Amino acid sequence: MEEVETTYRVSADTLRDFCTQVFMRLGVPEEDAQVTADVLVEADLRGVASHGVARLRRYVSGLQTGMMNPRPAVQVLVETPTTAALDADAGLGQPVSYRAMLMAIEKARELGVGLVTVRNSNHYGIAGYYAMMALEEDMIGMSMTNTDVLAVPTFGRDALLGTNPIAVAIPAGEELPYVLDMATTIVPRGKLEVYHRLGKKIPLGWATDEEGVATDDPGRVLHNLTHQLGGGLLPLGGEGELMGGHKGYGLALLVELLCGVLSGAAYMNLTYPKDEKGRPLPSNIGHIFGAVRIDAFMPVDEFKARMDDAIRRLHNSAKAKGQTRIWVHGEKEFEQTEQNLAAGVPLHFKVFNDLQAIAQELDVPFPFEAE
Amino acid sequence: MEEVETTYRVSADTLRDFCTQVFMRLGVPEEDAQVTADVLVEADLRGVASHGVARLRRYVSGLQTGMMNPRPAVQVLVETPTTAALDADAGLGQPVSYRAMLMAIEKARELGVGLVTVRNSNHYGIAGYYAMMALEEDMIGMSMTNTDVLAVPTFGRDALLGTNPIAVAIPAGEELPYVLDMATTIVPRGKLEVYHRLGKKIPLGWATDEEGVATDDPGRVLHNLTHQLGGGLLPLGGEGELMGGHKGYGLALLVELLCGVLSGAAYMNLTYPKDEKGRPLPSNIGHIFGAVRIDAFMPVDEFKARMDDAIRRLHNSAKAKGQTRIWVHGEKEFEQTEQNLAAGVPLHFKVFNDLQAIAQELDVPFPFEAE
Repeated sequence: MEEVETTYRVSADTLRDFCTQVFMRLGVPEEDAQVTADVLVEADLRGVASHGVARLRRYVSGLQTGMMNPRPAVQVLVETPTTAALDADAGLGQPVSYRAMLMAIEKARELGVGLVTVRNSNHYGIAGYYAMMALEEDMIGMSMTNTDVLAVPTFGRDALLGTNPIAVAIPAGEELPYVLDMATTIVPRGKLEVYHRLGKKIPLGWATDEEGVATDDPGRVLHNLTHQLGGGLLPLGGEGELMGGHKGYGLALLVELLCGVLSGAAYMNLTYPKDEKGRPLPSNIGHIFGAVRIDAFMPVDEFKARMDDAIRRLHNSAKAKGQTRIWVHGEKEFEQTEQNLAAGVPLHFKVFNDLQAIAQELDVPFPFEAE
Repeated sequence: MEEVETTYRVSADTLRDFCTQVFMRLGVPEEDAQVTADVLVEADLRGVASHGVARLRRYVSGLQTGMMNPRPAVQVLVETPTTAALDADAGLGQPVSYRAMLMAIEKARELGVGLVTVRNSNHYGIAGYYAMMALEEDMIGMSMTNTDVLAVPTFGRDALLGTNPIAVAIPAGEELPYVLDMATTIVPRGKLEVYHRLGKKIPLGWATDEEGVATDDPGRVLHNLTHQLGGGLLPLGGEGELMGGHKGYGLALLVELLCGVLSGAAYMNLTYPKDEKGRPLPSNIGHIFGAVRIDAFMPVDEFKARMDDAIRRLHNSAKAKGQTRIWVHGEKEFEQTEQNLAAGVPLHFKVFNDLQAIAQELDVPFPFEAE
């Protein structure tokens, strides 16, 4: 959950429509534009502003430079009754991911389990969006992606791995579903940017300097990452092995192997690859999506009652000294969504201004007014 | 990897035969006895002594008290072409897990993916054993289990989760396979026992005291766990959310939901459940096993070449200051196995003595001599 310096509150529906219009103006078909806009706005609703419309500029640039293909011909490279491998043809990450997750769900509906990889894709937004698609089908959903390299392996100096998120969604009955959506680094790059902006030091263990040693200076890490001077984010568990850093590294590597190596995408990818003439190349990011039908294991009602019981045991368990609540994963984001639906999606004034600039540049009507 | 105070080195084959004889003497059929012995000795070979023959006493006791059923009638509760849910009938964890993983592999061979849960089981040894069974089939293998409760949720005071390991094995070509086998706590309970024995403090963040606050006193944590006074091991990421403790908690909970709730096993289980008369009850531990056929996504040769390349990029990457090697998961254990096959399996003198006592108690020939 990230802090947002709220300046404006806007309607989620209107924001979604605006983003859809922007994508369509850049040649993206309506259905794909709608899906992409929905994934972005969902991130803002859930309180993950770093993956919300604040990223619209990057998608606009990607589509304008040709790094992202507005009208990709998505190919099914190989398919079995339970699996498929797709090539996204360098299109936006969201529409192909939505389609891949639907395929996984359809395969699970037929045979119990579905698993679909995607290569040659782009940033797909929040991992949890796709995992959560399984919930209303009474399935367990899974989604992972590799990303631009930002994280160092244990004992390594150079960033070779992404923040490589893992998302799993599991339905409950009366309780909210379990929705894990976690980067395999301790924090995302955006967290360092926030600390840097505020002039604050970061806790030792979040990131390393250019020699691969833990540092508390976020500006140094960001500078080093931008110029590929060494160092980067540390995996969950931090520096070395004492606090389990090799486990977080193992999870980040797992995501890289499934989403990069197995899918046929790039792996341990260079950040923002360019051709010989310095033009941006498609980033060739890879994803994997999974769905598992719950009634392949036990009746859905029984399962949901057990989930409710497990969640309540956590809620009702004794709290650590000074603590008042034990959270189950996803609860914070569902509560944030309710608040933001009621009060409007919070947009930092810089994001608001950037959206307005995009509207002017692309001659798309801007539906919001500065107060 | 744990330190072993080596006193004796014994032949792995002889050790395996000895354990097989012990299990058979307690009524376990030969095939099941062999599998269980193999899983135990494999742990010792890999350098995970805490999950090796040091645990033989617990299995002996479990079989003697009736907590573990030597001749279980394993049932397939529900089955689809890609999935199955088994009931282990309170038998040893290893034979049913071996069978469940074979089922997952067979289903993956037919249809691309296989996923099998087990309920009503017992401690199954090292998670990685089953995941690695997929390697020679050119599949990706996965194995998880819940365990006795030892870990506290983020912001919680009481242990509600197990060390809940996650294992994934992915084949490579010329390089060693990737084998992740990690508890979702920072360290296992055994690590605290080692520090306690040596009179050392533990790093803050490994475990909490009876108020749910991080402590450096391993004896206090062990005492509290034994008497269920509160506190326990912390999940990967440590105390609170600052270093990502909620992520490790999320992973531990994921394992609990898949292995406990979905399988139909106990979840957030009491340690060593007893009936009204104080007799030990079956622990009703649950597991999940998965297999994915690589050629459902890309030709196996191409995949293995990509794996080798990914692994070499890690190996050849610049090292952090003061470091000489970047490890890929599983390498340490494979190297340890080679050493132990050559030099003999190291047995701490206490373990050696305990094996000898078991041999005498059960009238099984003890094949080793004290030096």
